[in-house]
Amino acid sequence: MSLEFLIQRTNGKARTGRLITPHAEIETPVFMPVGTVASVKGVPQDLLEELGAQIILGNTYHLYLRPGVETVRKMGGLHGFMSWRRAILTDSGGFQVFSLSELRKVTEDGVTFRSHLDGSSHFFSPESAMEAQIGLGADIIMAFDECTEYPADQARMRASMEMTARWAARSKQYFEERKHEVPWARVGTDAFVRPEGRSPESSTAWGDSKVVSLSDGVEVELHSAGRTNASVPTQSLFGIVQGGMERALRKESAERTIEIGFPGYAIGGLSVGEPRELTCEIVESTLEHLPKDKPRYLMGVGTPEEIVKYANLGVDMMDCVLPTRAARHGLLFTSEGKVSIKQARYASDPGPLDPKCHCKVCQRYSRAYLRHLYASNEVLAQVLNTIHNLSFYLDTMQRVRHSILLGEEYRFLSGAGLGRNLEL
Amino acid sequence: MSLEFLIQRTNGKARTGRLITPHAEIETPVFMPVGTVASVKGVPQDLLEELGAQIILGNTYHLYLRPGVETVRKMGGLHGFMSWRRAILTDSGGFQVFSLSELRKVTEDGVTFRSHLDGSSHFFSPESAMEAQIGLGADIIMAFDECTEYPADQARMRASMEMTARWAARSKQYFEERKHEVPWARVGTDAFVRPEGRSPESSTAWGDSKVVSLSDGVEVELHSAGRTNASVPTQSLFGIVQGGMERALRKESAERTIEIGFPGYAIGGLSVGEPRELTCEIVESTLEHLPKDKPRYLMGVGTPEEIVKYANLGVDMMDCVLPTRAARHGLLFTSEGKVSIKQARYASDPGPLDPKCHCKVCQRYSRAYLRHLYASNEVLAQVLNTIHNLSFYLDTMQRVRHSILLGEEYRFLSGAGLGRNLEL
Repeated sequence: MSLEFLIQRTNGKARTGRLITPHAEIETPVFMPVGTVASVKGVPQDLLEELGAQIILGNTYHLYLRPGVETVRKMGGLHGFMSWRRAILTDSGGFQVFSLSELRKVTEDGVTFRSHLDGSSHFFSPESAMEAQIGLGADIIMAFDECTEYPADQARMRASMEMTARWAARSKQYFEERKHEVPWARVGTDAFVRPEGRSPESSTAWGDSKVVSLSDGVEVELHSAGRTNASVPTQSLFGIVQGGMERALRKESAERTIEIGFPGYAIGGLSVGEPRELTCEIVESTLEHLPKDKPRYLMGVGTPEEIVKYANLGVDMMDCVLPTRAARHGLLFTSEGKVSIKQARYASDPGPLDPKCHCKVCQRYSRAYLRHLYASNEVLAQVLNTIHNLSFYLDTMQRVRHSILLGEEYRFLSGAGLGRNLEL
Repeated sequence: MSLEFLIQRTNGKARTGRLITPHAEIETPVFMPVGTVASVKGVPQDLLEELGAQIILGNTYHLYLRPGVETVRKMGGLHGFMSWRRAILTDSGGFQVFSLSELRKVTEDGVTFRSHLDGSSHFFSPESAMEAQIGLGADIIMAFDECTEYPADQARMRASMEMTARWAARSKQYFEERKHEVPWARVGTDAFVRPEGRSPESSTAWGDSKVVSLSDGVEVELHSAGRTNASVPTQSLFGIVQGGMERALRKESAERTIEIGFPGYAIGGLSVGEPRELTCEIVESTLEHLPKDKPRYLMGVGTPEEIVKYANLGVDMMDCVLPTRAARHGLLFTSEGKVSIKQARYASDPGPLDPKCHCKVCQRYSRAYLRHLYASNEVLAQVLNTIHNLSFYLDTMQRVRHSILLGEEYRFLSGAGLGRNLEL
């Protein structure tokens, strides 16, 4: 009802399918651009739609600090707040607290941490992380987990994994009790949701849409009619598998998370400093313990080569700041490998960034111009570079899906060293 | 041939018409967004087209320093370099040297100045400024002038005005001798011009377009076929009237500049710190001495109210950094007056920035979201704010043109204080 996952075709371990959420039908495997504080940095929402992004990610930690959950909730959740009509996923804040905040203190209750913005003190528990994510109103939200640092010893990895399992149960319990509080389910002057991209045959399943006049005379379209209506979709809560770099602990974590029961499962706690080979090994072994009929989400990964590799291993969803962050550093992914556009060798290069790319940047601008924008510190450099890198990632994933449908394994033809030795 | 100016309708002192340049037909009066270093800060070229910008401005001083004239020339001029197919105007560098560089030394020959980027020493003369502007290849270029500082005494204003007149004659002489060197007139592997927006009846006047294969296999379309072809259009050089804040000197400057003879005339040396009332008085009196059948360009002006006022006085072209710079400071122009989007009062405001505006920002985003983007220092704030402000300026000018056609005088209905007390 709130989430459907239909596998269309499998090819070895890889599979392609459709993930149907309240706001969008998503073709999988999917790459999700990161929009940390309700903006994919530098890219307007209509351009993200044009690029084919069906789902984007928001960071609960950042949004909780700024603009605050209540502000977002009053606008109908993230969809209304940022005027994004397709799907959204929020993380639980666990990883951000782990990676960004200082003076973090973890107890059984939850985590006390200081804001990276102003040093103010805050507390996240499974319950408060769910409360925040329900207020933010993403289609898919994540259980509150503890991301285990790397390296960590066996005892620490086990204790952390067990804490994550207990927190997953608490997350689910809170979510089940309060999931009908999602802002879309409320009819009020502050609700503001305009769903888009539902296929005709499924659109009625969520109830007819309804136009409501707000107090200031603005008319908004709501697609649900009240909190007690059982046919109204809610968010979907995914569980997260932890267990450090230990295969046995990962297996146990998977089993315990599945026992609690979620409509989708994520692999967390990777890309925390471990060698890339180890990441891959843990992903591959963990995937074996996840249900085949549920979406599998690998968090915070990776380079273009890696997202292809993991999709071929059976991962359905991935997110990563790499394409957007690299773009801001002038590092661009192309079919011919990485291009560091700041280099003087491109100063008079009249060719497109990537001759095989159909994005609007490669169709219109030269390497010389992109190099000039970067060298001159022009904001347009970030805008154009981000559009290209996201296009490259989203197009890559589309080709992967196409290959799976054809029963072939997609590989980069060239691209040797794509994403290797990234120093950002 | 290289410039036509057709007045369609006059209404009091105001007039609306068409300015036909090699790359675009421009409806006047026109507001020209400023793209200092070959980019209107934060806005991709296709969006500028969507906003209806028919001509944009580039700054010779900045482009000369970075990326350098030769780099731009080799790409076919600014049109090829930045992939802008409509019209471009470059200033002469005179005003930027006046306002930006340190240790400026002015002699009869020209100006020695230090780069604001790295302190390196450079020299601009009427001849070198023409050489630079021919290399940059804008449709309209400006004579090299001396911008008189404010305040200045009578002797200083006269001397400066006379220098500008002598420099205008030198500018014209150099330009006439070398104007066929404009990059569009060259057929070579580095030429890169794709004209757009020519009306069918006039497109053949410039000769048929021609597809040329470059050495790297890229095909580009050229719209001219050789430097000796007399039917090939060139750039147009405009003269600039100076004379400080003295009406008699302005009159004399206009007469001397007209005597040299240019296809268009600009009023320079204003908005240099004088009271707004004085600016208006000088503009009004100077306009009386400019030929009615030639385009009149008021440089570096102004607020939304001012551009309306000057258009009603008979100015045909204006440019100003205000809409783009104000946008970066969160200051937005609306039909209801100025909005400082950073203010906390907008934090939960679900309404559009300007309910009467049809731009894509007002059609999609709330004030709350724009306020959040600005407060969070997100790049998208600059992008969206700039799109709105430019849209407001361009739409305002379109309404002015419409009013002139209808024989009415356009005035802001509300907008009290629009652009007043700007502290950027």
